[in-house]
Amino acid sequence: MRTLYHIPLSPFCRKVRLALAEKRIPFELRIERIWERRPEFEQMNPAGTVPVLLEENGLVIADSYAICEYLDEAYPDLPLLGRTLAERAEVRRLVAWFDGKFHDQVTRNLLYEKHTKRLLGRGNPDATAMRAGYQHMKQHMDYIGHLAENRAWLAGSQLSLADFAAAAHLSALDYIGDVKWELSEPAHDWYARMKSRPCFRGVLADRISGLAPPEHYSDPDF
Amino acid sequence: MRTLYHIPLSPFCRKVRLALAEKRIPFELRIERIWERRPEFEQMNPAGTVPVLLEENGLVIADSYAICEYLDEAYPDLPLLGRTLAERAEVRRLVAWFDGKFHDQVTRNLLYEKHTKRLLGRGNPDATAMRAGYQHMKQHMDYIGHLAENRAWLAGSQLSLADFAAAAHLSALDYIGDVKWELSEPAHDWYARMKSRPCFRGVLADRISGLAPPEHYSDPDF
Repeated sequence: MRTLYHIPLSPFCRKVRLALAEKRIPFELRIERIWERRPEFEQMNPAGTVPVLLEENGLVIADSYAICEYLDEAYPDLPLLGRTLAERAEVRRLVAWFDGKFHDQVTRNLLYEKHTKRLLGRGNPDATAMRAGYQHMKQHMDYIGHLAENRAWLAGSQLSLADFAAAAHLSALDYIGDVKWELSEPAHDWYARMKSRPCFRGVLADRISGLAPPEHYSDPDF
Repeated sequence: MRTLYHIPLSPFCRKVRLALAEKRIPFELRIERIWERRPEFEQMNPAGTVPVLLEENGLVIADSYAICEYLDEAYPDLPLLGRTLAERAEVRRLVAWFDGKFHDQVTRNLLYEKHTKRLLGRGNPDATAMRAGYQHMKQHMDYIGHLAENRAWLAGSQLSLADFAAAAHLSALDYIGDVKWELSEPAHDWYARMKSRPCFRGVLADRISGLAPPEHYSDPDF
């Protein structure tokens, strides 16, 4: 069976899980404690990061960017990167926005400070970083709301990897109770639509030992 | 004329410049002082980052990932992302390695600390960050050397975007005199081959006012 090596709260892994599920490509999940630096895993991916996809034919694809591009090339039936060159440029611009800018300004400052640091025994969250994270989140929620108000989906008329990248970051932050949904009603409504899709079930069923999500986490009517 | 908005020492811009030149796609360069937040530019790319490619037909492509994928789709004559699924996975894994891991561990700690901070008046370089940058560079030079010793080019038998991503970061660091080429002879020899390609001429001709590169910077026999 196709295997995705992952960490439950990693937004990059969640993006791939959502894309696989939306495309109805069956896969097994395997948690990889990358901090243990398992030699067999580092042979598959010398960067030592997740996600890594191991295909049934033995092909290994490391890195969420490489995996998502691969999925649209290997399983083109339901394209998630857009059809025209212009659509594809817009989807990828937004994927880079969420995996780059949003990640640096929000995810890193909140999820990593509050959760990952504790997990790895790297000390207490930095208050300045967290403050910056909350401030940036406001701007990003405005931007998501702006896109959601003007388009059917974030990158245009079709659901795309841009929606999954955004939802992956927000869902991980929502698990630790750090998304202020009241900041933007259109962003909230877009995320409610994402949550009610079948592809989202796996992500909403995640439960991490010793860290319960808020009640609304898995409720599409939140 | 096709226009690339860029900053001379940005490795992400250099990667795109090298890819355009290798594919013999004519373009004009325009320096964009992104810290001035020019409204016309931010309308093209709300993230406010370079590179941004403006095509002659008016199509705007923002972000180096989106641009490089676009270039291989719009101008497929000389593919830089590989041909088979396995080749493409390997090229993209390495692009992610250099634009992700190498950037975070080396470029950020050296180029940004020593050059960008001064450019933006954000204080002095942080000694701890610089020390980390030099330490990580050693590991990365070993890895590049390992790839260069075992393959014709970094990702396999064909020159690819992986070579341009690596060379883009190294060339920017080399401009500020921060690459210890003696760390790896095979990495040095691979970079000498890169430098002697016609596509590299533009990057080697860059001169930044008030910041002269070391003499070997533009010499292929360094």
